[in-house]
Amino acid sequence: MVCNSSLVSTAQSPDKPRRNSAATKRRLLAAATAEFAARGIAGARVDRIAAAAKANKRQIYDYFGDKDGLFDAALEAHTGGIHEATLPIDPDDVVAYAGRLFDYIFEHPELSRLVQWARLEGRVTPASYDKRIGSFRRRTAAIEEAQQRGRINSRLTPEQVLTLIESISVGWTIATTEFLADADRESRNRQAQRTLIIDSVRRLLT
Amino acid sequence: MVCNSSLVSTAQSPDKPRRNSAATKRRLLAAATAEFAARGIAGARVDRIAAAAKANKRQIYDYFGDKDGLFDAALEAHTGGIHEATLPIDPDDVVAYAGRLFDYIFEHPELSRLVQWARLEGRVTPASYDKRIGSFRRRTAAIEEAQQRGRINSRLTPEQVLTLIESISVGWTIATTEFLADADRESRNRQAQRTLIIDSVRRLLT
Repeated sequence: MVCNSSLVSTAQSPDKPRRNSAATKRRLLAAATAEFAARGIAGARVDRIAAAAKANKRQIYDYFGDKDGLFDAALEAHTGGIHEATLPIDPDDVVAYAGRLFDYIFEHPELSRLVQWARLEGRVTPASYDKRIGSFRRRTAAIEEAQQRGRINSRLTPEQVLTLIESISVGWTIATTEFLADADRESRNRQAQRTLIIDSVRRLLT
Repeated sequence: MVCNSSLVSTAQSPDKPRRNSAATKRRLLAAATAEFAARGIAGARVDRIAAAAKANKRQIYDYFGDKDGLFDAALEAHTGGIHEATLPIDPDDVVAYAGRLFDYIFEHPELSRLVQWARLEGRVTPASYDKRIGSFRRRTAAIEEAQQRGRINSRLTPEQVLTLIESISVGWTIATTEFLADADRESRNRQAQRTLIIDSVRRLLT
């Protein structure tokens, strides 16, 4: 009788291979996030990701299909995070949503980079598209409800309100902020930046 | 006596080689802008740029050094354009600057993409840094003058005013605007978007 040691091992400890596989996937996703955030899809190297995750290239192909699939999984993990951290918009306090959005972006610069790479490289999957359009519709519905309850003014459409909130809460990441160290340290300060955003959104909406 | 026909030709028509070289450079810059805007530095291929410009790779190396040098030249050509088109800020009409900035970004989507690739890929040259910090300082000085003349309010620092103007005038390019086609065609309309931006900046500054 031939004894297959790997089968025997699986039988003795049925969860172990699955746990190992989950741990490897987590390490691969963390390494992929760092590599893709730094270099984008075209510039990323699967070799480097595998080495950083103490895994091998074959595992990347087994778990994620290819480099694009690994990018999608990394982006997905982070966009799920922002939806959880910032949703839902409370129709009674739309301004607080702008603060939460700012906080998330401030604390997760790698997400901004992943989203920008995805947009520039045209990497949109049906799943991520569905998730984003769902989030867009939930948010504009909450803004409309806030307008109907008179919590924010109705001079703008819900879509315009959302565009303004996103522009102000996220747009500073692409503004000319790298020179502020010379010119105005205080306005780089997180609390000052947050106050500027919250006050601006409040002024525009109420 | 050996007659060098190329020298004779140069002597007869001294400007022709220079004109041809200038025309080739222009074609290379146009092709490079399209390729880099679409694919970034890592994803761009020098072969494709040379073919699109009806030139050869050797000319790229002769004129621009390497792929990075060609990217810098393409970006430089466009950032020069935005400085010319939007500068200076008139201290008596800061709000109009927001409109000009929006117009330029709207009409030159390839510039937004080049700037985003440059930032993501960390491609900053001393020349482009100097130009940007010079522009930053001229703009904040004009905003400060506008505050001193009482044309805009002084509750924010000049740097905060500039961050807000840039966030609102440019930030919509990274907001969730791709779903507006379904939800609200009107707010995608250029004039409506421009009005939203101008009105918002005016509300925040006056």
